[in-house]
Amino acid sequence: MEATATAKIAPSMLSSDFANLASEAHRMCQCGADWLHMDIMDGHFVPNLTIGAPVIESLRKHTEIFLDCHLMVTNPLDYVEPLGKAGASGFTFHYEAAKDNWQELIPKIKEKGMKPAVAVKPGTPIEEIYPLVESENPVEMVLVMTVEPGFGGQKFMPEMMDKVRTLRKKYPSLDIEVDGGLGASTIDTAASAGANCIVAGSSVFGAPEPAEVISVMRKTVEKAQQKN
Amino acid sequence: MEATATAKIAPSMLSSDFANLASEAHRMCQCGADWLHMDIMDGHFVPNLTIGAPVIESLRKHTEIFLDCHLMVTNPLDYVEPLGKAGASGFTFHYEAAKDNWQELIPKIKEKGMKPAVAVKPGTPIEEIYPLVESENPVEMVLVMTVEPGFGGQKFMPEMMDKVRTLRKKYPSLDIEVDGGLGASTIDTAASAGANCIVAGSSVFGAPEPAEVISVMRKTVEKAQQKN
Repeated sequence: MEATATAKIAPSMLSSDFANLASEAHRMCQCGADWLHMDIMDGHFVPNLTIGAPVIESLRKHTEIFLDCHLMVTNPLDYVEPLGKAGASGFTFHYEAAKDNWQELIPKIKEKGMKPAVAVKPGTPIEEIYPLVESENPVEMVLVMTVEPGFGGQKFMPEMMDKVRTLRKKYPSLDIEVDGGLGASTIDTAASAGANCIVAGSSVFGAPEPAEVISVMRKTVEKAQQKN
Repeated sequence: MEATATAKIAPSMLSSDFANLASEAHRMCQCGADWLHMDIMDGHFVPNLTIGAPVIESLRKHTEIFLDCHLMVTNPLDYVEPLGKAGASGFTFHYEAAKDNWQELIPKIKEKGMKPAVAVKPGTPIEEIYPLVESENPVEMVLVMTVEPGFGGQKFMPEMMDKVRTLRKKYPSLDIEVDGGLGASTIDTAASAGANCIVAGSSVFGAPEPAEVISVMRKTVEKAQQKN
């Protein structure tokens, strides 16, 4: 690898106390989080409904941290305007929901000042998103789902690491994010495969010392990058 | 009127600080709120996505108040189980989204220990919901929308009061809720028409003294009931 994408540890607020998001966000910042991962689900793309732009807007008033929004919705284009206004930093849409309009979607996300990214479900072959990384208006991150999206607390799917390895080989400096089942026992596998953005929910919020978990994750990513 | 439905003032958390829901809820309880109104929107039934069961579940851990959930979703049946588990108290579905399955929906809501209620958009004739009030498994409240559902801060539609008057005449002890644009200048109209459950967002959260607004609303409903 030449240029390396730096390690970003993103606690998933899906595992936080939704009734105290401001203080949960502050706590994670103090624990060394780089980003906060915000799971936006509409009850249609996935069988769960979580939070939307009004919640991002409220949270933004309390923190300046990068809000990494992962949209599990059937109509991502409809959310560019409200999330841009709300203060979202990253806008990750699902490829499966944007097969027909990603060329329109990516520049609109950039216009609103957000980092455009694409997510793939476990069943989607990684080759399908190459055009989005290589387009004139490319995505700046790929999120490889390591569980079926929809709920927190699921088991990591190691077979998804082939996708991460393939991507890392092809795009040495691309931000590659993994989400689902990341914790002490799986971080090494993900980091070795080439992931640099790590979403972690229950393993961070359920830990007695979240700062330690975040620190170990960061070191594991950095160590793996030195090896490669 | 014989038996009267008691006044219930329900601040709408849509106008609260979503990053501090627990403390906002406590504040409203101290200000005399009877219920908290929770607007659940899926970005499909209405063009906004707000909060879902995971947020209700988090909030329930911090308060015992009646959580009056208003579902602006296309598939209310899917939410009975998760909202029941999450600790919702009231489950108000939209008639427009349940024309075909309200007979299945109402008993399921009751089974989960929630108060079943039906909401009607401004364009829906009130006659259409009579069968739901008169069914063997009836709804226990009707929510007459006084704005188009989707966003807070909209202007009250006084022409909806015909629906409220018609309902109150027909069902003297039914809980009749109004939602949208309720404040100092509209509460009297709504209360006189026969509404006893009052949802109020910006007029409560935007007030220097929310307790005063809540108290005036309650007194206005009680006064109107004495007159009738």
